[in-house]
Amino acid sequence: MSLQRLAIAPTQLQNEQVSLSASQQHYLRRVLRLQTGDRIILLNGQGQAWLAALQEGATATILEPYILQTELPLDVSLILALPKNGFDDVVRACTELGVSCMMPVISDRSLLKPSPQKLERWRRIATEAAEQSERQTIPPILEPIPFAKSLAHRPDTRSFIAVARGTWPHLLTAVAADSRPSAIQIAIGPEGGWSAAEVEMAIATGFQPVTLGSRILRAITAPIVALSLVTGVLESQQARE
Amino acid sequence: MSLQRLAIAPTQLQNEQVSLSASQQHYLRRVLRLQTGDRIILLNGQGQAWLAALQEGATATILEPYILQTELPLDVSLILALPKNGFDDVVRACTELGVSCMMPVISDRSLLKPSPQKLERWRRIATEAAEQSERQTIPPILEPIPFAKSLAHRPDTRSFIAVARGTWPHLLTAVAADSRPSAIQIAIGPEGGWSAAEVEMAIATGFQPVTLGSRILRAITAPIVALSLVTGVLESQQARE
Repeated sequence: MSLQRLAIAPTQLQNEQVSLSASQQHYLRRVLRLQTGDRIILLNGQGQAWLAALQEGATATILEPYILQTELPLDVSLILALPKNGFDDVVRACTELGVSCMMPVISDRSLLKPSPQKLERWRRIATEAAEQSERQTIPPILEPIPFAKSLAHRPDTRSFIAVARGTWPHLLTAVAADSRPSAIQIAIGPEGGWSAAEVEMAIATGFQPVTLGSRILRAITAPIVALSLVTGVLESQQARE
Repeated sequence: MSLQRLAIAPTQLQNEQVSLSASQQHYLRRVLRLQTGDRIILLNGQGQAWLAALQEGATATILEPYILQTELPLDVSLILALPKNGFDDVVRACTELGVSCMMPVISDRSLLKPSPQKLERWRRIATEAAEQSERQTIPPILEPIPFAKSLAHRPDTRSFIAVARGTWPHLLTAVAADSRPSAIQIAIGPEGGWSAAEVEMAIATGFQPVTLGSRILRAITAPIVALSLVTGVLESQQARE
């Protein structure tokens, strides 16, 4: 059972004492039914956290710094065919969702190599998003390479390729059925999907084709859906361990 | 290769003949390069679809009814605290993901009621997204109301409220553990999250608090994650039935 977390404003903290607002007190005591002496985690929204104990009245006392654990229990990487537009949003949302590494690739139906300025921009977005989502790690975004080159074998890595309009197993089923690998990677196609040749090539390299559901997702929604499913399985399994 | 799908207004259909608008003709003939005699799927946005053949001029002839199966096996509605920005993207992605109904709400930490123009715009986006994602139904977007009013009891509906930084069970675990209800509704907060009073009120009305994972998600990412998890559970269960 993990401890309750509460965001505080930096101004609420002074000399190891935190002054709780009326609504924070109400939430902790009435909604969560915490008692004096109970431990909570306080976050300042800037990556710092502390273990604290509730006191009588409207304060909590800092006990020690607390290392947040918001990273996924294993590496989950995405191989992403570059969409025509909207890759900024993909980078932002995938970083929030805990992605370990993003590998943009040039596919049969995607655009030419983006400019170095774009890559710089995506890395800046990943940095901001990692901070806002209270992660400890900023996920790297690799230099875009052709899809075929991204398919190199990675030891003890479970590899999936999302394919639309197929009759493949659902990603959720496939991940939940796995004994825990060391790492997971998922390849997500561009607008119009992967070409038949690309799917075939990925399967030959050991990728398992999966569906993300019955509806047709845009290229910029699909990575968010895939990550939501994988992180959901990993974190709900973790909570039961 | 699946057939091209096109949404039509019910008024376009008369005596098995569909009158195509100028922009529909352009799209079919110029963009998709379809010819007279080619088959398409027509959708009326209310769950009905037909196989049709393009005719000379501005019409298409209905050949037979067409059964699409891209809707979720049960209704999944979202109660969405209006975010400051980005609700267009929420509407688009949630429609793609199969949402049954979107209920925008005014919460303690969200903005005032949006203009009727905004609501019109969101409904237009939902219509487009339903078409692009090959859905049979266009999800309604209700008039925004205060959060408290949205909490009315709905019979045989399983209700969840997503709460950040808590120790609540994961939405994936909660949904997977359920015997199948008739409907699911999930309340997603604004930037800064629900207020303590709102969470308390929802719990009192029978909503189960859940987490969407360890990281802090933006208000516009959270609904996509929640829907991904719920649709993933429903569709992967369905596939096994």
